[in-house]
Amino acid sequence: MTESLADAGPAVALVKPAVRGQPAYTLVARPSRRKLNQNESPWDVPEALKREIVERAMALPWNRYPEFVPAELLRRLAAAHMWHPDGILVGNGSNELIQAVLATTLAPGSTVVSGSPTFSLYRLLTNVFGGRYVPVALGRDFRYDMDALIQAATRERARVVVLNSPNNPTGSALPPDGVERILESTDALVLCDEAYQDFGGPTAVPLLPSSPRVVLRTFSKAFGLAGLRFGYALAHPVLAREIAKGKLPYNVNAITLAAAATLMEHAEIRTERIRALVATRDRTVDRLRTISGITVYPTAANFVLLRCLRTPAREIFRRLLEDYGILVRDLSAASELQECLRISIGTEEDMDAVVAALEQLAGSER
Amino acid sequence: MTESLADAGPAVALVKPAVRGQPAYTLVARPSRRKLNQNESPWDVPEALKREIVERAMALPWNRYPEFVPAELLRRLAAAHMWHPDGILVGNGSNELIQAVLATTLAPGSTVVSGSPTFSLYRLLTNVFGGRYVPVALGRDFRYDMDALIQAATRERARVVVLNSPNNPTGSALPPDGVERILESTDALVLCDEAYQDFGGPTAVPLLPSSPRVVLRTFSKAFGLAGLRFGYALAHPVLAREIAKGKLPYNVNAITLAAAATLMEHAEIRTERIRALVATRDRTVDRLRTISGITVYPTAANFVLLRCLRTPAREIFRRLLEDYGILVRDLSAASELQECLRISIGTEEDMDAVVAALEQLAGSER
Repeated sequence: MTESLADAGPAVALVKPAVRGQPAYTLVARPSRRKLNQNESPWDVPEALKREIVERAMALPWNRYPEFVPAELLRRLAAAHMWHPDGILVGNGSNELIQAVLATTLAPGSTVVSGSPTFSLYRLLTNVFGGRYVPVALGRDFRYDMDALIQAATRERARVVVLNSPNNPTGSALPPDGVERILESTDALVLCDEAYQDFGGPTAVPLLPSSPRVVLRTFSKAFGLAGLRFGYALAHPVLAREIAKGKLPYNVNAITLAAAATLMEHAEIRTERIRALVATRDRTVDRLRTISGITVYPTAANFVLLRCLRTPAREIFRRLLEDYGILVRDLSAASELQECLRISIGTEEDMDAVVAALEQLAGSER
Repeated sequence: MTESLADAGPAVALVKPAVRGQPAYTLVARPSRRKLNQNESPWDVPEALKREIVERAMALPWNRYPEFVPAELLRRLAAAHMWHPDGILVGNGSNELIQAVLATTLAPGSTVVSGSPTFSLYRLLTNVFGGRYVPVALGRDFRYDMDALIQAATRERARVVVLNSPNNPTGSALPPDGVERILESTDALVLCDEAYQDFGGPTAVPLLPSSPRVVLRTFSKAFGLAGLRFGYALAHPVLAREIAKGKLPYNVNAITLAAAATLMEHAEIRTERIRALVATRDRTVDRLRTISGITVYPTAANFVLLRCLRTPAREIFRRLLEDYGILVRDLSAASELQECLRISIGTEEDMDAVVAALEQLAGSER
């Protein structure tokens, strides 16, 4: 394109300063043999099920909008959680439902309290919607510090408290009574992001009837459906109706709805995959703990966070990729995560390779 | 579910008043033989192409997130519009990009100016984001009144001017110099929603290099891909980078990206379908104009708006559905659209049925 473009300055000036001031969410795609950087399931949806889903897709009229309310899918999700179908919202990934909750609740200056470090989207969207983001440092070994969270929520008159458990990127789970304690001590909307709860820690779902809050779940992890984007929110039906105003109509495409419905008929896959993943994770964590040059943090998720004590994390990241074909997530640029790497749990073979590589790269006094 | 639920009142009180005060976007699904209520294409994606797309989908790893930047698809879209790949954002339907533009630009009280009546989502999202929505009445026969729009944009210091052309639900296209006139007279961000531009009226795409604005397009209409949700925005690359902060990462699922890429390789389908649809539309409009009991408004879209002069629109809507199996959109509850129905252009056979039914229901002095 050789033509010159007009100066975008005047148009960009119409973008809110809070938006302009923040970095974009980006990810550089690097090809690798072992992709352990996005907390994806190491296993694709089984071939036979993919075939069942695409044949179902073939029979759908693609020229028609998806169902406005996917009633059958909502009934299945409701049954699985013993919750009300009209208290469930489907999303194009659970990220979209984080967006809908924050869009409908945050007025200018409204405060969002969350543990820190945590998933960067909470801060990014709070800024977009003009809210004030108050991060509360996690405690020793990145454990949730409930007293600090409660104090901050009260002191800052939080409108929304986000609890990500297990927490990305640390793996920390809330204590068993964590959500109850928050609910007792604040009037904030408590948003429980349970994207990783399949793999460990308590769930807030049983608390839904007694005290309204929002719980988010996803098919991206245990079901291995990250590529098709499906998440859902559970909330009191009256609250769900309000939050729905912040999400778009027809937000989940017809094929993804068909895929989610089909997978719900095969819940045993999810159970078996969770069992296998957790076994691999626990075995991997035990083996990583024997390596002298790293600290391994406790995890209830499908990933593990570690801190490099001798060799810089950036160097280990680079050598893992270049020498071993292993792509992990380098978080060491964040002030709270200096020298930290996050490694998704892959197959047994993936994790054998990770352990062997880290023994070489981090363990020895080089 | 027999358990009693806690009162949702305190939680709902945390939802912004501007959100609580507005009705939800809803649509009651009614089964019908001829579905002409959502401006969908009457033609599904051809069977052979659907097969090509699902086989492409079978080969993708569903457990992996979609590409962060779908480079190949962006290159194809860029080539089709003679625009820059990094000035294109893909969306889960173009609605998501309306949301991203408004989320990143509207501060509390920021004004959005738009023609009226128009697509309800602009008002709904403006309210969600705390903006002020200023509708400007369209002129005679729902034609765009550029002077009135320019005056309102200037007087109200509009931050965003939304131009939906052809306009939903009226079918009105902007005059040929409409966008230029707006651009010359206001510093607002001009959001050109061209969801229906495939079927008629001017496009703002050639104006992109000379003056930054945002143009939205969709695959839902001419390509017949409403069920898979794919839209995109064209904007100056610097502006696109800012608007991207208001949309979620991985917002378009892997199968939809594959479908869009495949359809871009078969652009002749789009061309042929547009030609056929426009021919049917023009023939239908001519025939409807011969029916004495209705006013038919000019349309450049894949639908036509009409006003019922004798029999109430609600009654005609009901009898079309019950006696003829034809489902149209009853807009008569809106103050500016009293006695109005919107009818999507379907197949020739669909439109023969519509014309015959309206001759019976609206034409005769009953």
